[in-house]
Amino acid sequence: MNILAIGAHPDDIEFGCGGVIASETRCGRSAHLIVCSRGEAASNGTPEQRTTEAENSARILGATLEFVEFGGDAHFEHSVARAMTLARILRRLRPGIVLSPAPVENQHPDHAVLGRLVRDAARLARYGGVAELRDLPPHAIELLLFYAVSAEGEPKDISPVFLDVSDSETIATWTAAMQAHGSQMATRDYLDLQLARARVNGLRAGVEHAIALFPGGPMVVDSLARLGRGARRF
Amino acid sequence: MNILAIGAHPDDIEFGCGGVIASETRCGRSAHLIVCSRGEAASNGTPEQRTTEAENSARILGATLEFVEFGGDAHFEHSVARAMTLARILRRLRPGIVLSPAPVENQHPDHAVLGRLVRDAARLARYGGVAELRDLPPHAIELLLFYAVSAEGEPKDISPVFLDVSDSETIATWTAAMQAHGSQMATRDYLDLQLARARVNGLRAGVEHAIALFPGGPMVVDSLARLGRGARRF
Amino acid sequence: MNILAIGAHPDDIEFGCGGVIASETRCGRSAHLIVCSRGEAASNGTPEQRTTEAENSARILGATLEFVEFGGDAHFEHSVARAMTLARILRRLRPGIVLSPAPVENQHPDHAVLGRLVRDAARLARYGGVAELRDLPPHAIELLLFYAVSAEGEPKDISPVFLDVSDSETIATWTAAMQAHGSQMATRDYLDLQLARARVNGLRAGVEHAIALFPGGPMVVDSLARLGRGARRF
Amino acid sequence: MNILAIGAHPDDIEFGCGGVIASETRCGRSAHLIVCSRGEAASNGTPEQRTTEAENSARILGATLEFVEFGGDAHFEHSVARAMTLARILRRLRPGIVLSPAPVENQHPDHAVLGRLVRDAARLARYGGVAELRDLPPHAIELLLFYAVSAEGEPKDISPVFLDVSDSETIATWTAAMQAHGSQMATRDYLDLQLARARVNGLRAGVEHAIALFPGGPMVVDSLARLGRGARRF
Amino acid sequence: MNILAIGAHPDDIEFGCGGVIASETRCGRSAHLIVCSRGEAASNGTPEQRTTEAENSARILGATLEFVEFGGDAHFEHSVARAMTLARILRRLRPGIVLSPAPVENQHPDHAVLGRLVRDAARLARYGGVAELRDLPPHAIELLLFYAVSAEGEPKDISPVFLDVSDSETIATWTAAMQAHGSQMATRDYLDLQLARARVNGLRAGVEHAIALFPGGPMVVDSLARLGRGARRF
Amino acid sequence: MNILAIGAHPDDIEFGCGGVIASETRCGRSAHLIVCSRGEAASNGTPEQRTTEAENSARILGATLEFVEFGGDAHFEHSVARAMTLARILRRLRPGIVLSPAPVENQHPDHAVLGRLVRDAARLARYGGVAELRDLPPHAIELLLFYAVSAEGEPKDISPVFLDVSDSETIATWTAAMQAHGSQMATRDYLDLQLARARVNGLRAGVEHAIALFPGGPMVVDSLARLGRGARRF
Repeated sequence: MNILAIGAHPDDIEFGCGGVIASETRCGRSAHLIVCSRGEAASNGTPEQRTTEAENSARILGATLEFVEFGGDAHFEHSVARAMTLARILRRLRPGIVLSPAPVENQHPDHAVLGRLVRDAARLARYGGVAELRDLPPHAIELLLFYAVSAEGEPKDISPVFLDVSDSETIATWTAAMQAHGSQMATRDYLDLQLARARVNGLRAGVEHAIALFPGGPMVVDSLARLGRGARRF
Repeated sequence: MNILAIGAHPDDIEFGCGGVIASETRCGRSAHLIVCSRGEAASNGTPEQRTTEAENSARILGATLEFVEFGGDAHFEHSVARAMTLARILRRLRPGIVLSPAPVENQHPDHAVLGRLVRDAARLARYGGVAELRDLPPHAIELLLFYAVSAEGEPKDISPVFLDVSDSETIATWTAAMQAHGSQMATRDYLDLQLARARVNGLRAGVEHAIALFPGGPMVVDSLARLGRGARRF
Repeated sequence: MNILAIGAHPDDIEFGCGGVIASETRCGRSAHLIVCSRGEAASNGTPEQRTTEAENSARILGATLEFVEFGGDAHFEHSVARAMTLARILRRLRPGIVLSPAPVENQHPDHAVLGRLVRDAARLARYGGVAELRDLPPHAIELLLFYAVSAEGEPKDISPVFLDVSDSETIATWTAAMQAHGSQMATRDYLDLQLARARVNGLRAGVEHAIALFPGGPMVVDSLARLGRGARRF
Repeated sequence: MNILAIGAHPDDIEFGCGGVIASETRCGRSAHLIVCSRGEAASNGTPEQRTTEAENSARILGATLEFVEFGGDAHFEHSVARAMTLARILRRLRPGIVLSPAPVENQHPDHAVLGRLVRDAARLARYGGVAELRDLPPHAIELLLFYAVSAEGEPKDISPVFLDVSDSETIATWTAAMQAHGSQMATRDYLDLQLARARVNGLRAGVEHAIALFPGGPMVVDSLARLGRGARRF
Repeated sequence: MNILAIGAHPDDIEFGCGGVIASETRCGRSAHLIVCSRGEAASNGTPEQRTTEAENSARILGATLEFVEFGGDAHFEHSVARAMTLARILRRLRPGIVLSPAPVENQHPDHAVLGRLVRDAARLARYGGVAELRDLPPHAIELLLFYAVSAEGEPKDISPVFLDVSDSETIATWTAAMQAHGSQMATRDYLDLQLARARVNGLRAGVEHAIALFPGGPMVVDSLARLGRGARRF
Repeated sequence: MNILAIGAHPDDIEFGCGGVIASETRCGRSAHLIVCSRGEAASNGTPEQRTTEAENSARILGATLEFVEFGGDAHFEHSVARAMTLARILRRLRPGIVLSPAPVENQHPDHAVLGRLVRDAARLARYGGVAELRDLPPHAIELLLFYAVSAEGEPKDISPVFLDVSDSETIATWTAAMQAHGSQMATRDYLDLQLARARVNGLRAGVEHAIALFPGGPMVVDSLARLGRGARRF
């Protein structure tokens, strides 16, 4: 598998970085989604509805989907046990790139808690001596990339990398995936917000639409030719 | 030309990012060096010696070299006229990647002044209506990367990208280029400092030696596969 | 006069905070615009066209307009003389609120230079003993608010205040004012960018559209009832 | 109710923002204080004394008072259960403005823990589907304002808003409320500290005395006329 | 006792600030080391080996050593109970200076957790009324200094103080102490990293080798003559 | 000479760090004051009055005084020529410690400009080859310490060091030195502000009164015993 995306609630991945998943699967890379609650605390939608919506949305994105139990929506807490649950998943799936909500406070406390847990899990997964993980070989992921479900959740102390998602098919797939979360569409505000953010970031990057990702640590290249171009439009 | 590196004093490029130049030219990319003084204010070395040393060093790095007059070592000032001088060079040479000292205060005031001037120049070079540049067509560089002549000059608010320079030939070429600045070798402190920094950064990046570069703006990629791996060793 | 807005180029005020001007004049407050160049360095539009566009745009916004000579587009430099020019304007016009580009580096070097000059001018305008300003009585403005022409120019170290500009008449006026800069409309990118930014900020603020302003110093109130509400939507 | 102030120890509200309470109640607004321990870990004063002192102090401030059990002084821990306790209080009392210690490390670990809990509670209180809160309707507060019990606890990354508390009756009431905590008055250092801080902040704000408050998120206004004036004295 | 150093794993003190311990004991000051796990989660070395290595290393450094149980390597969690364990140690040992890992995320989650616990413990140790500590008199340490096990763990928001460890005997002792952790020497990378960091910091400080320490709060002096000199070399 | 203090206006040193000078001269160390204007732009006081006040104040502090011409109050500009003027003074006087306004924007633009010039001058003074300084031998100062004329001017990115100035004679001398600036005493606000700041900082430091200083670079010590104690009171 190439990409593992982790979200706290059934629509977080889609709203926060659905365009990234759409873009990557369109190019033939595989993606797997882990969702850590059924959105039980939300003002709209039952857990059953939310589950179905997430399944439909994953299908639209061309990704596989798996739910993990983390104590329920609005009940995430930071603990070693939860980090071990995620580390075990990393060892089982052995992804190259992991997309995680950023460990930055924003409109829902679960987002930042999950971000810290994924960061810890990426470390635990590669230590050889962790007793409760010993049945699976250690795994070091290639790259941890944080996404932000809303503008408030963007890390201020990490330089963003913009992924160009201007391709019309990518935008259509992403939009459809967001629309699949019908229970959250009473108003179209969330959908509008994400497309407007992608347009703003696109104009910053000199393309139509872009999504900002925040590397969980410094990147390493063996040639400057490997680097993307700069966001030179502005 | 692929890479343009700009330095305030005859040895700044070599000490700050000589390994980058060595690595890129070894892979067949072309590099041009612009040096903006003859090191007249330094405690050691005459301007003539410094000029010769820079010429020898550029040859070792496989790069071409050019001097520009900026008022003399320790006399750099920020002005539109100086930024226009650099913008004109950018239009003439039309580089893809530009390496510049970071606009961050450190042990020599010229470094930060030059960093601000290069940043301004990269913008001016692409405006269509600038009267004094109108004889050359506008040029937008692909990527501005800041280097730091010393640890103090590293920007704290930009996430670094590490270039792996572990290749033994690259290290040997870089070391030789630094040694070519014999007048600055009374003690080997500067040389030691750079190799120790590259070793620290290498271990941060999970390789033998690495050089930290700081993008002058967010980077844009069209696929996550384009991104380097993360510095996952630590 | 209530509000003085200052811009580096003929369209900066409109693109950066035109909705603020539209909103305030719609409520009966007066606004005056100072533009410090004719956009001579831009890739599109002659100085004459730009001047006419700014005049039309100001009329649409219900504001008065005045040009000031600052050395020409792309030639702004920080100097006491320029700050005194602005301080003299502040003493002459005696505004309560001043809108200025933020002193933050972004796609055009003039923006940050002008931001620093306005900040200095707001101080100089209130010192009693400045010889070259002595013919006009000192004036202390009530509030300095920075705007950002693009997302890159938003200060990271100042907490934003959102002005709700959701009123449909305000949005229409603002849009018309931006469209008045026809020479910059080859693509509609700038216009799109600003409306998308206002939509993102609106959703952050829990309204349809909002513009982020950045106070130039701490605000003082005599009752908590004076404070706006928080951006509680997200 | 207009204002809800929350404190970790019996004197935190008084020392951190007692002048704010005094100023608001003097103008006829209602205030309620929640105190989350009896100061059991302090070097001076028994829990019974501290309770009586807090009751007397609240009476002086013209506020009502309520104690909540959080595990005892020096034993605060971040947990969803504690955040739910506070969210339930927010739904019950339905305040407009909430004053909370800042989530910033300072001389007592409880302060930052409580700040994080209040921030979380303000979010949980407005989610419709939280099972354990379902018997009370959701409530979104208007504004979360952080106060700092000491200078070390002031957030560096939020721009302060100064409340003018220069009115002599306000200062007298505040001073009396602090003096009501007689067990903490062995030296008058805490009292001195707060009045000196208010004097420093007052001079920053151009008034006699002021208290710095730190908005928990960006503020939203529908007119620039709603904004306070700037702290223009200096 | 003069100095208490606390580490999460058997080799953290040696790799992070072993040169500090070596330098201080060489000058006749006493040092005690507290290690909070046996390195059970590491890829190399058994807990028994790690224990013996730590004992040998402490002997080389001229320090005494004590193990404390914190739930095991990779299982550190922030809790009041753990902070009380450390506070009790501070009251028992009554050190002047405490060296602690910085509360900054880096390659191992335990490091930052322990840093936060030590910071909390330094506060709890001086409160007079903490029930579970009442059998030992309160103690206020003189100075809390954070060290960083790797470059990633250096606090960006605290100005470093450099300790000159250039003395050849100090370097030899430090190197031997690191080598005593033979199970971690499969490659010499960790040892190399620390000596390279000390060389970089030494050159920043104008000496041969230096270690950066980060004060846990502002320092207080009664004369400027007490201050060290500045790092004036660069 | 031990200490050189540099100020932009006749009362800046006294208001910003007069207690430091008083404390040091009381202990027998010598201090020299450089003032770079006559306060010509101030609302109160003629240049002649200001000069006399500065002379009287220096006498009270036990320091010598010298005026330097920098273009006049409110007319400071950053230039190499001005930095050279200061570098020449450093070479002539050869001070160990230099006190300078911080290079941070605050209520008067001259303060930050002078801070940047002093920082540059400290570098230029030690370069061996600077033509216009060649008649005086290079000099490297021991320590550059920034002071802040007001709270707004305190650097947020440098950890403060507190100097204890609680000694009653020191406070009396400092107060008298501030009072010597009678033309600025129309209200006692500035005097009040500084004593209140010293009281707040004193309580932060666990002493009666303290002044915050901000090292211009990292400090170097050869023993932890050299470090002051931490500000452990709070």
